Amino acid sequence: MNVILSRDTQVKIMENTVSNAEKYFGQFCDLMAAYTRKSAKLRDKSDLLVKQLIDYGNTENPELRTTVKDFAEELAKVQDYRQAEVERLEVKVVEPLKLYRVLIKQTRAEIKKFNKARNNEIKQLERLEKVRQKSPSDRQMIAQVESQVHKASVDASRTTQQLEETIDEFQKQKFKDIQKIFLDFVTIEMVFHAKALEVYSNAFQILESYDAVKDLEDFRAKIHMASGSFHESRPVAVASPSPATPWSTQVGHPFDN
Amino acid sequence: MNVILSRDTQVKIMENTVSNAEKYFGQFCDLMAAYTRKSAKLRDKSDLLVKQLIDYGNTENPELRTTVKDFAEELAKVQDYRQAEVERLEVKVVEPLKLYRVLIKQTRAEIKKFNKARNNEIKQLERLEKVRQKSPSDRQMIAQVESQVHKASVDASRTTQQLEETIDEFQKQKFKDIQKIFLDFVTIEMVFHAKALEVYSNAFQILESYDAVKDLEDFRAKIHMASGSFHESRPVAVASPSPATPWSTQVGHPFDN
Repeated sequence: MNVILSRDTQVKIMENTVSNAEKYFGQFCDLMAAYTRKSAKLRDKSDLLVKQLIDYGNTENPELRTTVKDFAEELAKVQDYRQAEVERLEVKVVEPLKLYRVLIKQTRAEIKKFNKARNNEIKQLERLEKVRQKSPSDRQMIAQVESQVHKASVDASRTTQQLEETIDEFQKQKFKDIQKIFLDFVTIEMVFHAKALEVYSNAFQILESYDAVKDLEDFRAKIHMASGSFHESRPVAVASPSPATPWSTQVGHPFDN
Repeated sequence: MNVILSRDTQVKIMENTVSNAEKYFGQFCDLMAAYTRKSAKLRDKSDLLVKQLIDYGNTENPELRTTVKDFAEELAKVQDYRQAEVERLEVKVVEPLKLYRVLIKQTRAEIKKFNKARNNEIKQLERLEKVRQKSPSDRQMIAQVESQVHKASVDASRTTQQLEETIDEFQKQKFKDIQKIFLDFVTIEMVFHAKALEVYSNAFQILESYDAVKDLEDFRAKIHMASGSFHESRPVAVASPSPATPWSTQVGHPFDN
């Protein structure tokens, strides 16, 4: 039964190859999908930050308002690139990994087909053994069963060859695909990081060129404009001061300093 | 009562300034903390991917094993930079934004102090009005109350000045801090993106130089070594073939091709 055993070993290797690919590509698919989702969440939080920055900018003094608005726009650009990253990861990394499940299913079907042919061959061989033991002189019967064994063997052999070709193709494709998928992943990440770096460089310039002096002057003017209205109209209480009012005799007013 | 109104306007501006900072810096703090957390989650998922890649590499043919292992190492480096990014965001962005809550609390205390002084001034002015209406001829009494009004006014005035200085300092600090915090954010992100870009460039080279040919030869050799064992020992069933066995007369064997 060495032919069966050797073919068993061969099929074992093939089955392991497929199972291993199934296990790891499945995990890669799940992890890449999770990585993509986490990137999308980072984009969501950043989008909220952009929104809050714009809202905040509108409440601020002119210089800071412009700075914050411009900064928010750059931050929004990074999120556009992150969105592109997320979409590309989905299409060029997660989807091809998902397709692996289909490829693995097809290969599993090939293995199953082979196992069926192999089981039939074993059955015919067992039948031949029985006939030889029971009716060793019935050459016609033996020849007939031997013919069936032959047919089953040819079938198993053909199926094995098909399986070998399928697995060979599967491996070739896997080697090519794993390289392609991870190259695509790296390319997508590189493009994103390069673009983000570029945009953040602009953002840096925007933030660095912010000059708080004007805003501080602006704020002080606003505060003093508010307190200034007091100088124009004296309080009612002091509108008709009695001569003894100690502070009505002062030239200045305590509030003046 | 215009002095009270004008000071009310001034304090309103100050209170709005503080409330606005409280609202937006609070939101920035929450969003930056969330952004940092999401980045940490992206690192976690990537760490898992690194682990799975190493596991997978160990199950693969030599060339792919080396490629996957080297690629995983580069991916791990990106995660080290991401970890540094997360720690820096925590220290240089989230923490300073948290400190704002303390600064805002202090400024709120100043405003409260002013409101207390202002309320006392109003009370004394109201008392003076009453005394003037009830005992317009009691000059001694009026002078006494006027003296208390004066004291309360001086106190309110001094507190207002302190408040103005506090708010001025608060604004100056806020303008400086918002610039610094977001510049730090942008710098941290730039460093991370630059490093990631550099590492992914290496990763690209590693993946691109992978040659599947050797691995495929390796795999084929393994499969044929397994099927080869069959050629050495023919199956029991054909060990003693009857002359009529159609395939025992063939030179080759169906399994041979």
